[in-house]
Amino acid sequence: MEKLTVVKVGGKIVEDETTLTQLLKDFGEIEGSKVLVHGGGRSATKIAADLGIESRMIGGRRVTDTTMLKVVSMVYGGLVNKNIVARLQANSINALGLTGADMNVMRSHKRAPKKVVMEDGTEEMVDFGFVGDVDKCDGKMLSNIINNGIVPVMAPLTHDGNGNLLNTNADTIAGETAKALAPYYDVTLMYSFEHAGVLKDPENEDSVIPLITEKSFKELKKDGTVNGGMIPKIENALDAVRAGVKQVIITKADAIDGQHGTVIK
Amino acid sequence: MEKLTVVKVGGKIVEDETTLTQLLKDFGEIEGSKVLVHGGGRSATKIAADLGIESRMIGGRRVTDTTMLKVVSMVYGGLVNKNIVARLQANSINALGLTGADMNVMRSHKRAPKKVVMEDGTEEMVDFGFVGDVDKCDGKMLSNIINNGIVPVMAPLTHDGNGNLLNTNADTIAGETAKALAPYYDVTLMYSFEHAGVLKDPENEDSVIPLITEKSFKELKKDGTVNGGMIPKIENALDAVRAGVKQVIITKADAIDGQHGTVIK
Repeated sequence: MEKLTVVKVGGKIVEDETTLTQLLKDFGEIEGSKVLVHGGGRSATKIAADLGIESRMIGGRRVTDTTMLKVVSMVYGGLVNKNIVARLQANSINALGLTGADMNVMRSHKRAPKKVVMEDGTEEMVDFGFVGDVDKCDGKMLSNIINNGIVPVMAPLTHDGNGNLLNTNADTIAGETAKALAPYYDVTLMYSFEHAGVLKDPENEDSVIPLITEKSFKELKKDGTVNGGMIPKIENALDAVRAGVKQVIITKADAIDGQHGTVIK
Repeated sequence: MEKLTVVKVGGKIVEDETTLTQLLKDFGEIEGSKVLVHGGGRSATKIAADLGIESRMIGGRRVTDTTMLKVVSMVYGGLVNKNIVARLQANSINALGLTGADMNVMRSHKRAPKKVVMEDGTEEMVDFGFVGDVDKCDGKMLSNIINNGIVPVMAPLTHDGNGNLLNTNADTIAGETAKALAPYYDVTLMYSFEHAGVLKDPENEDSVIPLITEKSFKELKKDGTVNGGMIPKIENALDAVRAGVKQVIITKADAIDGQHGTVIK
């Protein structure tokens, strides 16, 4: 099967001119078919603030009321997405910006209010508002597009099929896209984050664990090497591997050449 | 050849919940393949004002500096476009929101500063900023998409191939799209505007001129029936017809069934 790489980059990278330029260059150099998934939370927070709207984050997730939905629709679907698309076109990459509503590629449902452990340790029922939990991704439609030489650039927005856009976590979009494309390609899912990979010693960027498997993950959890927020990240990666994704790579945004970081498979 | 209709609707229609709902219903009922082109100027002016940015219009065209370009990228490419796409999906229309940058469908160049007759009659050199004059539209790419059952929804944004988005008049986008699709379909270009059609008597909505041809246009200009802003509108329509578009229809947004308005061919 043909190689395909799904690269997820956070808002921090795509919202800074220097890091964006480097990222788009590195992304262009990835061989085979590819998909870019981006965030944009910082821009959304900034534009919201400029509009006099306060951003409320709970457990790292944005509470999205009607007004905030308009902001993220504008910022993720317009400002960030279309800027990346125009920049990729300038690099001779035939990009196509997509939300989940476009060609119905990703359907979701509005998250029901749920119990969240707050910072002070208490539990609270939180209504995240117009936030989508993904139901399905149309890998066939995406693969048709990709086979025509087009590179999808996916914004962290989905839709519910009833006319509503829903704010959706970019890591989730990347994971669901990779899984949906697994029947058609040899898929590598690459998550860029702030470290060189999963670290043995959090203080040492040279201590990257080169490979994590289902088996070694159990040991890494047991001896405490992997803890906190890394646990759900790796669990999601292993879930993608179980669903047919060939490998998941976690590394820095400036090291997405497939030669660096932690490989999970 | 298969029938295809390009419908252009202004911002006023797509920005009001009631008129948008009716428009999307009417649009869905058009037979054959179709493309929707939308404006969004009122929303852009409103969001800009909310951000403390003043909109400067000269001769009905928006002066687009770097800050205003961000606003129109957000509003046209994100807020208005993706909302329409999600709403069409709810009506079982497989919409795909596009700017000219997406799949490189419409390339343009930045308009050079040009002499404009101001309201007081004086001439002034005006730099409209990041405004695009269209160079080419990729009808082949669009027709590939359309033949897969997809309905393009086009925002009034193009790109220059050097990484810049450019604010582009929606009437122009519609005209260029119709012309580029003329080799592949039997194209009707429908412009919705504030009247029932081109009127013989501007005070009487029942005085719609049913048909205008190259020949009758000369007479209508000569005797003064058609004047002012209607002249360039009809000239553009005749230009589209000369370029292979089967007919251009000018009518109200609530009468896009092809049975009303002025036919230009």
